[in-house]
Amino acid sequence: MQDNIIADRMAPYLQLQMYAKFTQLAVKNSCVNMGQGFPNFPPPQFLRQAIAEEALTETLQYTITAGHPRLLKAASEFFDKHMGVKVDIAKEIVASSGAQSVLACIFQALLNPNDEVICFDPAFDFYRPLIEFQGAKHVGVPLRPSQLNSKASILNRFENGKIKFSKEDEWHLDYDYLEQKLNDKTKMIIVNSPQNPIGKVFSVEELDRLAEILEKHPQVIVCEDAAYHHVVFGDYQPFSYPRCITHPKLKSKTVCVTSAGKMFSATGLRVGFAIGDEKYIKGIKSAQTYHNFCLNPILQTATAKCLEQTIDGKYFTEIRDLYEEQSTMLLKGLIESRLNLHCWVPQGGYFLVTDITDVEIPEKYFKDDQDGHQLTKDFAFAYYMANEIGVVCIPCSPYFENKELGSRFVRWAFCKTTETIQDACNRLK
Amino acid sequence: MQDNIIADRMAPYLQLQMYAKFTQLAVKNSCVNMGQGFPNFPPPQFLRQAIAEEALTETLQYTITAGHPRLLKAASEFFDKHMGVKVDIAKEIVASSGAQSVLACIFQALLNPNDEVICFDPAFDFYRPLIEFQGAKHVGVPLRPSQLNSKASILNRFENGKIKFSKEDEWHLDYDYLEQKLNDKTKMIIVNSPQNPIGKVFSVEELDRLAEILEKHPQVIVCEDAAYHHVVFGDYQPFSYPRCITHPKLKSKTVCVTSAGKMFSATGLRVGFAIGDEKYIKGIKSAQTYHNFCLNPILQTATAKCLEQTIDGKYFTEIRDLYEEQSTMLLKGLIESRLNLHCWVPQGGYFLVTDITDVEIPEKYFKDDQDGHQLTKDFAFAYYMANEIGVVCIPCSPYFENKELGSRFVRWAFCKTTETIQDACNRLK
Repeated sequence: MQDNIIADRMAPYLQLQMYAKFTQLAVKNSCVNMGQGFPNFPPPQFLRQAIAEEALTETLQYTITAGHPRLLKAASEFFDKHMGVKVDIAKEIVASSGAQSVLACIFQALLNPNDEVICFDPAFDFYRPLIEFQGAKHVGVPLRPSQLNSKASILNRFENGKIKFSKEDEWHLDYDYLEQKLNDKTKMIIVNSPQNPIGKVFSVEELDRLAEILEKHPQVIVCEDAAYHHVVFGDYQPFSYPRCITHPKLKSKTVCVTSAGKMFSATGLRVGFAIGDEKYIKGIKSAQTYHNFCLNPILQTATAKCLEQTIDGKYFTEIRDLYEEQSTMLLKGLIESRLNLHCWVPQGGYFLVTDITDVEIPEKYFKDDQDGHQLTKDFAFAYYMANEIGVVCIPCSPYFENKELGSRFVRWAFCKTTETIQDACNRLK
Repeated sequence: MQDNIIADRMAPYLQLQMYAKFTQLAVKNSCVNMGQGFPNFPPPQFLRQAIAEEALTETLQYTITAGHPRLLKAASEFFDKHMGVKVDIAKEIVASSGAQSVLACIFQALLNPNDEVICFDPAFDFYRPLIEFQGAKHVGVPLRPSQLNSKASILNRFENGKIKFSKEDEWHLDYDYLEQKLNDKTKMIIVNSPQNPIGKVFSVEELDRLAEILEKHPQVIVCEDAAYHHVVFGDYQPFSYPRCITHPKLKSKTVCVTSAGKMFSATGLRVGFAIGDEKYIKGIKSAQTYHNFCLNPILQTATAKCLEQTIDGKYFTEIRDLYEEQSTMLLKGLIESRLNLHCWVPQGGYFLVTDITDVEIPEKYFKDDQDGHQLTKDFAFAYYMANEIGVVCIPCSPYFENKELGSRFVRWAFCKTTETIQDACNRLK
């Protein structure tokens, strides 16, 4: 009678999602968890303190659905100072329950059924369901590494505790393929920079080229997922790197997504923002109204306080430096491991990927232990790691439309304590 | 180029929503705001304290997407004790960001395009957009009052500070019309008890009759919106009144929605639950994963603490008594006002409605002051109130598919302080 009770749109997404599965496995096998991208160190004390203070005084009733005025003001002042973006808080910004909810509201507000959305693979695997829930179509355009780096080629660049990013680490977009995929149905293109999982920061030249291509398709909106915008390495300063929302030819067509939780190393905070032109934000505000109605006012004014307190940028320089150190420590450990991994130096974010083509994995890990179906090499590798090496990483084929290409890679999170990273490196030695 | 940039599904919902509009008007005209349903008294100190304590100790990273284990355990123990519902926390409960997000996840998880959803009008006006966003169809089946009570007929029932609910206050469902509207496309029926805005609590006989009718349509899911389940008057005890989730013939087909924010008089808390059979909850959990990813852990463990601390039920009896007193105070004020209003005694919730058929309203209020379009009488009344009497109430036509029927009514919130209600009553005198 009620056999097909779940909506068709949900059917492909009823399984336990990958991150939960590998986190469970990490706990079960006492693994070092380098999988899910959450910092395993405490959030800043000023954030805890702000929430505790606001809890005792802030009203606890509905706020304006687009966001508490103090939060929107603090965020816009912060974005003005650090990104050089002026935002009208009445029209050009909306807060929702974490960047996840912001993305859900953007897709609900802007995508019609049969619209196409281009993602640059490897792409955060939650884009696809959010796009498909609107009846729209996910179109993957792959990035490819320019080469398989040798251990020596990377270690030679190790200097002063850092490994300098070089041309050899670049992943390139196939612009011809992109142009083939762009058509009248294309409604949106997602630019995630720094990119999860590869840590790529798009260069000015790349954004220029993208802008030029998009001039031929003026209906296309750019959704810039800048969840990691404070974590940019090398010569970039936090928040200050080539961005769509500040690019002369892209900014008017860009909706930029950011995450206060990521900024304050507290992925559980659940406060995120969309900024952009009123023509987009008015729809996203309406989606937010029905999606969450509003956010908890304590979390909003506490986040406002933290943005006010950190507006000098020092906190973010320190955090960026920390993440850069951790990324180098992990990268060095992976290169020096007994496994034959190929690596690329990330330019930012929480993650890096390694190529596993040259790793030998026992045959048994290529079979799912629940239903026996054949697994791709990235999953086999991740299960092998979790069961024999005691380290959890994340398979990358879910990040690619081209699963064969994706199955060459796994993702490692470096937003972890020194102790955790050292432990992982020791197990991999 | 980008003219129709907003998705078609959002087009009808881009205007400032009614509650925000009337709250703005209340502020502008220094009105007593009896419009939006939020308590204007402070939330319990134990809730503030719990959030402040958890802020200093709880991890601030992602939690399990279905909800923090402590929260789900506390909620299920509370529901077991007060509702007599046993919930398997691994399978039959999910938390989301307030009842609003819970409803959004339910509709996303269970409704396919072209499915039909029956609402009993007057129905909370946010059901319709949430249904339509899924491509499903909202079908309104009206409830009608059995009579227009006279002032005397109600005041005669005033005794010991309460006005007893009687047969004269009942709003009846047209079962024949309901049966006409039920068909193979009907996927869901929403039962909101106590009902916003009329304060109706469905009787055992009504649920029995509903169950009997639904036996002919076994594909239909009951979505029981029990946001006000602690606020039931007369002989009912908090949480304990005829409910679909405990009805022998309905419980297996019911998903029940509740709100911790409403329970603790803190509409800004943003913690709500869905409970029901695993066959529904597995889809709702998945929707929640992509909708919010997870809730803030501080809010979750603080809510758990509050549920643990109030499990003896005393807090809720006190709150229920308070709301019943406030409802009587407002009802008496409306009956004794200089306006010619017809009233019904509510059985619970935050609201009551009045019939405005016999109220004379100056012609000018029947025109929208922004675009000049003709307004229905409920809107004219609400603007007249806000501009000349200094009290804000909410027009009811948005709660009805039959706008003509709905335009006879306006909604008043009684979840307000004695001072606020007295002020409103004085202005109405």
